[in-house]
Amino acid sequence: MRLRMEAFNKRLQAEITARIEQLDGQGKFRVDQWNRVEGGDGISMVMQDGKVFEKAGVGVSVVYGMLPPAAVAQMRAQHPNIGQSKEAMPFFATGISCVMHPHNPNAPTVHFNYRYFELGAEDGGEPISWWFGGGCDLTPSILYEEDAVHFHRVIKEACDKHDPRYYKDFKKWCDDYFYIPHRGERRGVGGIFFDDLDDRKPNELFAFVQSCGKSFLNQYVPIMEMRKDMPFTEEDKLWQQLRRGRYVEFNLVYDRGTKFGLLTPGARIESILMSLPLTARWEYMHEPNAKAYNRLMDVLRTPRDWIPL
Amino acid sequence: MRLRMEAFNKRLQAEITARIEQLDGQGKFRVDQWNRVEGGDGISMVMQDGKVFEKAGVGVSVVYGMLPPAAVAQMRAQHPNIGQSKEAMPFFATGISCVMHPHNPNAPTVHFNYRYFELGAEDGGEPISWWFGGGCDLTPSILYEEDAVHFHRVIKEACDKHDPRYYKDFKKWCDDYFYIPHRGERRGVGGIFFDDLDDRKPNELFAFVQSCGKSFLNQYVPIMEMRKDMPFTEEDKLWQQLRRGRYVEFNLVYDRGTKFGLLTPGARIESILMSLPLTARWEYMHEPNAKAYNRLMDVLRTPRDWIPL
Repeated sequence: MRLRMEAFNKRLQAEITARIEQLDGQGKFRVDQWNRVEGGDGISMVMQDGKVFEKAGVGVSVVYGMLPPAAVAQMRAQHPNIGQSKEAMPFFATGISCVMHPHNPNAPTVHFNYRYFELGAEDGGEPISWWFGGGCDLTPSILYEEDAVHFHRVIKEACDKHDPRYYKDFKKWCDDYFYIPHRGERRGVGGIFFDDLDDRKPNELFAFVQSCGKSFLNQYVPIMEMRKDMPFTEEDKLWQQLRRGRYVEFNLVYDRGTKFGLLTPGARIESILMSLPLTARWEYMHEPNAKAYNRLMDVLRTPRDWIPL
Repeated sequence: MRLRMEAFNKRLQAEITARIEQLDGQGKFRVDQWNRVEGGDGISMVMQDGKVFEKAGVGVSVVYGMLPPAAVAQMRAQHPNIGQSKEAMPFFATGISCVMHPHNPNAPTVHFNYRYFELGAEDGGEPISWWFGGGCDLTPSILYEEDAVHFHRVIKEACDKHDPRYYKDFKKWCDDYFYIPHRGERRGVGGIFFDDLDDRKPNELFAFVQSCGKSFLNQYVPIMEMRKDMPFTEEDKLWQQLRRGRYVEFNLVYDRGTKFGLLTPGARIESILMSLPLTARWEYMHEPNAKAYNRLMDVLRTPRDWIPL
């Protein structure tokens, strides 16, 4: 499973970056291969200052070694079979992660991440615990309801092929996960989120994750084709910058993946933080006054069911 | 002590904002008085888009109520007399906090914060534990060594009046505290930092904190007079924006005050996050190529003793 997931991620990375370069029409992905001294490697592909994208990154990674006791403790609640030992445990993680921030404030930021995790496998043996996690979500600055509907519809179709309950459960999990408690709002208009998925055969869950990953371009490219060249005002751009600030707040204060990365010894920081936007803004006591901005805020405060369940 | 510290903070806030408005010559501080439903109040004063300052905030606050068990647990190591109870405890905190981000990349960002904390006092009775904490630090984008020397010299004089060891100890504590582990660098060129100070009579420690607070304008205004109108390049401005990104990383990921604020129920988020710069930037794999920028990075990686000890 380690190798199959890694191979799938690499193919998906190549496919997505090729299509996004085509969409951008100007920017190219810089490709960095890196090695982790403590174990592992990865490929980070980042486009900066493209024509359409301010910053877009797609990274794949394989990381393994010993997980510190504090990190093991956090995983115990969901994986009781890892036992009560207070010692470090061998771990293995491989994943693909993608964040794209377009220039045009009418065009939404997007994120997805799919990963496979193993805990407690000694020297290539069977792991004590393994699971899949991941999800995708859309973060507009200006709300186009039809974009949210489209994004959700495509991922619902992927989910429905595997379990009729997946979309409903994982849509709610996404709304809960991307919540910024200190702001009382969500990061965006949602998508799906799941973690610690180990209640089926690995093959079945891998097939589900593959369906999700393969949906990404269908979820996002049609939206971008519509939004990337729309006219916008100075005020729209300023609003986008403030929304980017919230994106930074979520990622640095709450996001599990970012936190796990910052705490992993020898992690490649530039790859972890490539999710941050190129630019962001924080104004004291800013109140959105345009109706369009407030429509977004309503949805971020009270998540909506974008498609009938 | 509660009332005396609060009164001192308010006078200091008024004095500093008046002098900073004079220095700016154009921007005015917006004054917001707020109340916390769970107990407490404060005054936030923020200048945005001044002539000299992009964003400058000085806030005073009084917050009290019940501290959740998780927060109590974090304080137990430094204050063993609070006992082993797993229940919430009454707390009281009053402080002054200040962050100023100038427009000119030659002019440094500055921060200070002084606070008095009580734990376990029932209905106006004696607290089980009390302490002072605080500090000040300077964050240049472009390093002028004489500015760092001046900033440290003024606060050393304040420290020396109270204890010959304070400056040495608290300078090191500051270098340790404002460390960004995932970057391997400090936020700035330091200053002083102290916490959990309860080893003298409250009056003596209050006198020390007063000396520190009263030093601020002498620490910062002479530097600003020299730097605020210096010519700078586009590249300097871009570099400043990247350094602001690191400032955001420290504050959102590591800063105790920010974390405490984000976790305090009913806290006034706009006052807590007024420390964030107006604008910030994250470039993937940015390498400073100007000699001046690398001189700063050297100091952030290896703190320097700015004045003979």
